[in-house]
Amino acid sequence: MECSVINFKEKLGKFSEYWSPKIIAQMNDYHFKLVKFRGDFIWHSHADTDEAFIVLEGGMSIDFRDGRVDLGKGEMFVVTKGRAHKPFAEDECKILLVEPAGTINTGEPGGELAAEDNVWI
Amino acid sequence: MECSVINFKEKLGKFSEYWSPKIIAQMNDYHFKLVKFRGDFIWHSHADTDEAFIVLEGGMSIDFRDGRVDLGKGEMFVVTKGRAHKPFAEDECKILLVEPAGTINTGEPGGELAAEDNVWI
Repeated sequence: MECSVINFKEKLGKFSEYWSPKIIAQMNDYHFKLVKFRGDFIWHSHADTDEAFIVLEGGMSIDFRDGRVDLGKGEMFVVTKGRAHKPFAEDECKILLVEPAGTINTGEPGGELAAEDNVWI
Repeated sequence: MECSVINFKEKLGKFSEYWSPKIIAQMNDYHFKLVKFRGDFIWHSHADTDEAFIVLEGGMSIDFRDGRVDLGKGEMFVVTKGRAHKPFAEDECKILLVEPAGTINTGEPGGELAAEDNVWI
């Protein structure tokens, strides 16, 4: 567990791959994760939890079955539990995610884009 | 509950008082709160929860009984459960707090600096 000051830019410099969240902090049983988005992710949902997206740099969108939201730097959005969503970003976007420890990026284990769910940087 | 995109600058423009967290989003049973710091807060602790501080603008410090951390824009820190701390900021600092819904800013109800704990903006 990280117990010192966490600098987003310094941590973002430690990885370059897209769609692969890295844990930077823990608060109770929740994780703060940094992730870089570019291109299209897959449709998925999280059956047991809401998921918070905070945009640190760039812009991204989230498609829903019934609409879409566009997020820029300094904006956040909470995807509610069970809601199908597909994030995408035309250009590289840097995101801070907040969600329960153990949340899998694709909603369920397996599949090409399922990231390891416990990688700290 | 807020269900649209949340813009930090727009929300920060809605209040000016210090040490008075305003709720901007909910994720499960956690709240995201904006707060402006200036000057000294009081020593306190949260017996039941960790508390995450994310600096959006400006700089702040947190004194502990055994040390101190200094945080600038784009940095975060998690104060662990039960750890006595005293936040302070020489100049105005804008913070995003993440903590369980119902967490009281002073650790316990009452006192001059205890803010209303359920104010959405």
